[in-house]
Amino acid sequence: MTSSFQVSGQSSGQEAQRAAVDVVIMAAGKGTRMKSKTPKVLHTLAGRPLLQHVLDTAAQLLARKVVVITGHGATEVEAACAINTGAAADFDLNFVRQEPQLGTGHAVQQAVPALADDGVVVVLSGDVPLTQPDTLFHLIRACGGDKLALLTLEQRDPTGYGRIVRAVNAVQAIVEHKDASDAQRQITEIYSGIMAVPAAQLKRWLARLDNQNAQKEYYLTDIVKFAVADGVGVVAHKIDDAVQVAGVNSPVQLAELERAYQLRQAHRLMEEGVRLADPARIDVRGDLLCAHDVSIDINCIFQGQVSLGEGVSIGAHCVIANAVIEAGAVIHPFTHIDGEKLGVTVGAGALIGPFARLRPGAKLGAEVHIGNFVEVKNSTLAKGAKANHLAYLGDATVGERVNYGAGSITANYDGANKHRTVIEADVHVGSNCVLVAPVTIGAGGTVGGGSTITKNTEPGALSVARGKQVSIANWARPAKQPKA
Amino acid sequence: MTSSFQVSGQSSGQEAQRAAVDVVIMAAGKGTRMKSKTPKVLHTLAGRPLLQHVLDTAAQLLARKVVVITGHGATEVEAACAINTGAAADFDLNFVRQEPQLGTGHAVQQAVPALADDGVVVVLSGDVPLTQPDTLFHLIRACGGDKLALLTLEQRDPTGYGRIVRAVNAVQAIVEHKDASDAQRQITEIYSGIMAVPAAQLKRWLARLDNQNAQKEYYLTDIVKFAVADGVGVVAHKIDDAVQVAGVNSPVQLAELERAYQLRQAHRLMEEGVRLADPARIDVRGDLLCAHDVSIDINCIFQGQVSLGEGVSIGAHCVIANAVIEAGAVIHPFTHIDGEKLGVTVGAGALIGPFARLRPGAKLGAEVHIGNFVEVKNSTLAKGAKANHLAYLGDATVGERVNYGAGSITANYDGANKHRTVIEADVHVGSNCVLVAPVTIGAGGTVGGGSTITKNTEPGALSVARGKQVSIANWARPAKQPKA
Amino acid sequence: MTSSFQVSGQSSGQEAQRAAVDVVIMAAGKGTRMKSKTPKVLHTLAGRPLLQHVLDTAAQLLARKVVVITGHGATEVEAACAINTGAAADFDLNFVRQEPQLGTGHAVQQAVPALADDGVVVVLSGDVPLTQPDTLFHLIRACGGDKLALLTLEQRDPTGYGRIVRAVNAVQAIVEHKDASDAQRQITEIYSGIMAVPAAQLKRWLARLDNQNAQKEYYLTDIVKFAVADGVGVVAHKIDDAVQVAGVNSPVQLAELERAYQLRQAHRLMEEGVRLADPARIDVRGDLLCAHDVSIDINCIFQGQVSLGEGVSIGAHCVIANAVIEAGAVIHPFTHIDGEKLGVTVGAGALIGPFARLRPGAKLGAEVHIGNFVEVKNSTLAKGAKANHLAYLGDATVGERVNYGAGSITANYDGANKHRTVIEADVHVGSNCVLVAPVTIGAGGTVGGGSTITKNTEPGALSVARGKQVSIANWARPAKQPKA
Repeated sequence: MTSSFQVSGQSSGQEAQRAAVDVVIMAAGKGTRMKSKTPKVLHTLAGRPLLQHVLDTAAQLLARKVVVITGHGATEVEAACAINTGAAADFDLNFVRQEPQLGTGHAVQQAVPALADDGVVVVLSGDVPLTQPDTLFHLIRACGGDKLALLTLEQRDPTGYGRIVRAVNAVQAIVEHKDASDAQRQITEIYSGIMAVPAAQLKRWLARLDNQNAQKEYYLTDIVKFAVADGVGVVAHKIDDAVQVAGVNSPVQLAELERAYQLRQAHRLMEEGVRLADPARIDVRGDLLCAHDVSIDINCIFQGQVSLGEGVSIGAHCVIANAVIEAGAVIHPFTHIDGEKLGVTVGAGALIGPFARLRPGAKLGAEVHIGNFVEVKNSTLAKGAKANHLAYLGDATVGERVNYGAGSITANYDGANKHRTVIEADVHVGSNCVLVAPVTIGAGGTVGGGSTITKNTEPGALSVARGKQVSIANWARPAKQPKA
Repeated sequence: MTSSFQVSGQSSGQEAQRAAVDVVIMAAGKGTRMKSKTPKVLHTLAGRPLLQHVLDTAAQLLARKVVVITGHGATEVEAACAINTGAAADFDLNFVRQEPQLGTGHAVQQAVPALADDGVVVVLSGDVPLTQPDTLFHLIRACGGDKLALLTLEQRDPTGYGRIVRAVNAVQAIVEHKDASDAQRQITEIYSGIMAVPAAQLKRWLARLDNQNAQKEYYLTDIVKFAVADGVGVVAHKIDDAVQVAGVNSPVQLAELERAYQLRQAHRLMEEGVRLADPARIDVRGDLLCAHDVSIDINCIFQGQVSLGEGVSIGAHCVIANAVIEAGAVIHPFTHIDGEKLGVTVGAGALIGPFARLRPGAKLGAEVHIGNFVEVKNSTLAKGAKANHLAYLGDATVGERVNYGAGSITANYDGANKHRTVIEADVHVGSNCVLVAPVTIGAGGTVGGGSTITKNTEPGALSVARGKQVSIANWARPAKQPKA
Repeated sequence: MTSSFQVSGQSSGQEAQRAAVDVVIMAAGKGTRMKSKTPKVLHTLAGRPLLQHVLDTAAQLLARKVVVITGHGATEVEAACAINTGAAADFDLNFVRQEPQLGTGHAVQQAVPALADDGVVVVLSGDVPLTQPDTLFHLIRACGGDKLALLTLEQRDPTGYGRIVRAVNAVQAIVEHKDASDAQRQITEIYSGIMAVPAAQLKRWLARLDNQNAQKEYYLTDIVKFAVADGVGVVAHKIDDAVQVAGVNSPVQLAELERAYQLRQAHRLMEEGVRLADPARIDVRGDLLCAHDVSIDINCIFQGQVSLGEGVSIGAHCVIANAVIEAGAVIHPFTHIDGEKLGVTVGAGALIGPFARLRPGAKLGAEVHIGNFVEVKNSTLAKGAKANHLAYLGDATVGERVNYGAGSITANYDGANKHRTVIEADVHVGSNCVLVAPVTIGAGGTVGGGSTITKNTEPGALSVARGKQVSIANWARPAKQPKA
């Protein structure tokens, strides 16, 4: 996070940028309408904090430096950035605090000491998560290193927003709705809150801001008039995709952006060839990587890093997080997979579910079958192993072709420590067995149904631990007693 | 349900109403298009009968008396009202039967004997469930105790509806679509079927109705012309929210209203600060009370009385009914909770699911963990107790910090009677145990895996009941037999 | 599939058709945008291949002969048709291959040898799955045995489509968008790709096609100009329902049609009286037959042949395939039923779920209860039998009123062969039992909890097979060990 660099021309097909890009992110607001203790920019969209989306965008811009302006919940916001901004971001991350909060211009003033004079500053908002890097590349090009470039939006109903007033083509001013003339209110081009501006000029203009207005605030938008007065070109890059500049001020707006984001993810997947039963009923909260001929049924959720191999089929109502599902595997409905930090691997051609749960460290080989009401945690199952019914495999190493019976349990926890169970190849474990770890069932062995196994068994042996069957004839079952 | 009273001015911020409000609800219709044995007004929206929604609205109007006009399925309708209309309603509930059914005017004529002369009568329909009380308060104010007030709707496409014909501003008539002139058909204000009218006038006008029309029916709307003729003011309270006056005549309309209702619930929740992953995928069928910082993932259903404490997180695909979930609890996906009459309590910081089921009388203390494929019924779990895998706890009392092993079962039913299992604090129950109730496991004790416990155990003891492990070397597993 | 016949006048209320109908289906395309190894026409909509929908439509037209023109993936396409087109279709099915693929006209030329001169040929596309038979009956009537009839669509935005140019009323030409004059581009009637044409004329016109155009392809639409030149009437049957003529070229279009189809299914069900909690959240992939007063909660999926008896209630999040659910049964949420080829039957008044799984051959009698985390496979349960908690019944025959305990398992598989378990009437099986098949539990008997039963038991007997309970006082549970 500490390297600085000049943006070079090779960056992912983007044309060369002439000046280094420094990003300022406004993240000081409280977000009262969120009605939450969590600072607004830490609310999550698609599983990641709003601010993280903006930081990721900055990373894609190949920003040299990012200055996050914090205020409400500053400590929490700064800590969250430190955790989440990892290897992907190759920029110098700085925080400055804005206390008290005296307007958008005042916010950016706080960032001035952290900004070099030679860059182009892109001003973003920590609560506007879905601006596309391409849009900002266009904005930066419009700035060209010597102009003030505003990102603007064509909006059918512009009521309430600041209008972009142009003379011929050049931008003359941003006029707030309440200050606008009737003619100006007909303007449907509005300011988005996002700009790109040469750092040197920005600093000069910020120094000239005052708060002589109704709100007694320092407005960043006032720099437009300074630019015009100084004869500096003011240009606009206009888009018509409102989602890209939409901010989150309330749970309603957060949900709207979540849905917009998810629909876009769904379309991206379908354009890659993924078949979705219902594009309105899929949630991707992280990175979902799909090979050819993947199909995903309704109501699935993908979280963290998930990859699906060729021909994988995901049934309805699955929740899958941090997992690798290899080619041809079939995940039946109601399957819950969460690899967390250890990950989960499902081998090629495996059949999982319905009602299966794979937990961290489940590593399933090819053609493994995990059936209904089966839980697997921190266990390795070799090729062709099966646990088809009501079972628990925890801290186990299971060999090839093992058949693990219905209702059987690895007792991996002695109340204080966890131990491993080893079930060697070709073992057949009967129903309702308990394997008390540490224990090894030798290859090719059989464990009789209902046995509790506490000692290692020899390869090829039949092991049984159960009581003798006895019978009491004509037994009188208890009779229903009257309630007291 | 039997008290009568004058509406006083303090009622929840509403301005004083001058006259008592009596409500007449039309509920005699068959609802042929519902294609159902259930009378139309007993079909449910958001888990409650349509008629119940209207009765609840009447209660919020502080109605003095409610007269329900029944006909088709009268016995069933009347019985359902008696069950559902409980303490909340502080009005005098009456039923009158309309047999045969000769029109809307004829219906209201049946209510005449039950109506006092001094009130304002609000005429509602039992199949129009989503009228807001505020709307009706406005209507009642428009009536003012001496005018005929019609609730009207601005409708983009009014084809088929009765138009409101005005002279200057005053309402002159309701003209049915088929009787309307071309000019009248341009009118987009239509009659909703809901009115407020002084009882004394209503009675006089009802007496003058005739059925000299194509349908040979007595139309309630004919009273408009009597009012005009009598020089009584006819006023309209016009709204543009069609949902409030939409009736249910078919399963399609019922589904449309259900969705409209659910979307409104979703928005209400979000405005209170609840974060919803998808406002189009939540169903609230009853009362859902949420503290701060609650988040609810996709596809959840809430039924009956549910309250969610601060910071509670509800995972995807949960069904939760009649439960109290305390602060900070995390409900993982695919959790089914139904407290029915006994209720369910989930303590602060508890972790539940995925694939957990909590049944009536499950009372879970703070930090209890209930994991996958675990069922809890009529049992109390003290702070920190855990049952994480494939287990059943029924009619049990479980102490603090108990660890209840995978696959273990309380055998609470002897085939005739249910008995209690007591597991005292700090007990560790192994895997696949059976605790045959009535039985007590003494504090700090351990039950060995695979044991069937039928006798009480001492505190601190290790109790085991299982067969000795024996082994048969080189055992030949059965060979696959050819099919006959 | 081999009989030929003249269409008679009695066919399902349709008016008599004068000529036999032969159907040509274009199914040679690759579908590059699908990004899939599967030939485009074999991608599934509502669980069936696109081409199968078109074949089913042909069957409803009472087609005499169907000629499928294959190309890309021909072998796979032909094999799929052979499998799927069964008893329902009473037509003579032929395949012709188009290799190389030189345009739509060239495609139909391949079918010429298979077509008799006396019929009317209906040209359909294998990737246009949702054309309604009624629409095609209208088209065939418009053809009248002696005209060229085009199915056309009124399209708000016709950009890119071939326009229908009419003189007065008669169709003069189909003009491609790129060849259209400004005036012609104002035309909003477009050609759908579907036509009905007398076979004899079709053959003559096909012989005159050339590929003197920019694409160097033989266009079927060129026959319109031959018809006009020959003085043969060209007529259009115009519809405004774009879904009926929409083709599938990409996963996005496939998902759009899937949703359109599902919404129509939902409305059809509601019009029959089924109550759907959310018409946007139901998926029917096959035939769902509902009696009166059926209600279906959110997010259910029905596959294959499913029938629901009177008053059946299906809870949220259920997946039900190939099953008969009899009157009054209640299926709770999260129930997974799949009868595959053996079928599943749920008896009248049965209660199933939540979290139940019924597999092929589960035959449940009246008032059977199957509860949470219970799996039933290839088993018969007689009236009133219950398995309410965490259990497995496989290859079992269960008598009336049997109570099958929590955690109990039928060990039906000895590692090589499957055997049956017989549980006679009124048996009470305790918790966590294993019944090792082949075994019979005699009528009225009781099996003690935790028993593994390997030998038949006598009627009325209590059978127990478990270890004696022993106790070690003041047992020191293992202490937590430091990690190495």
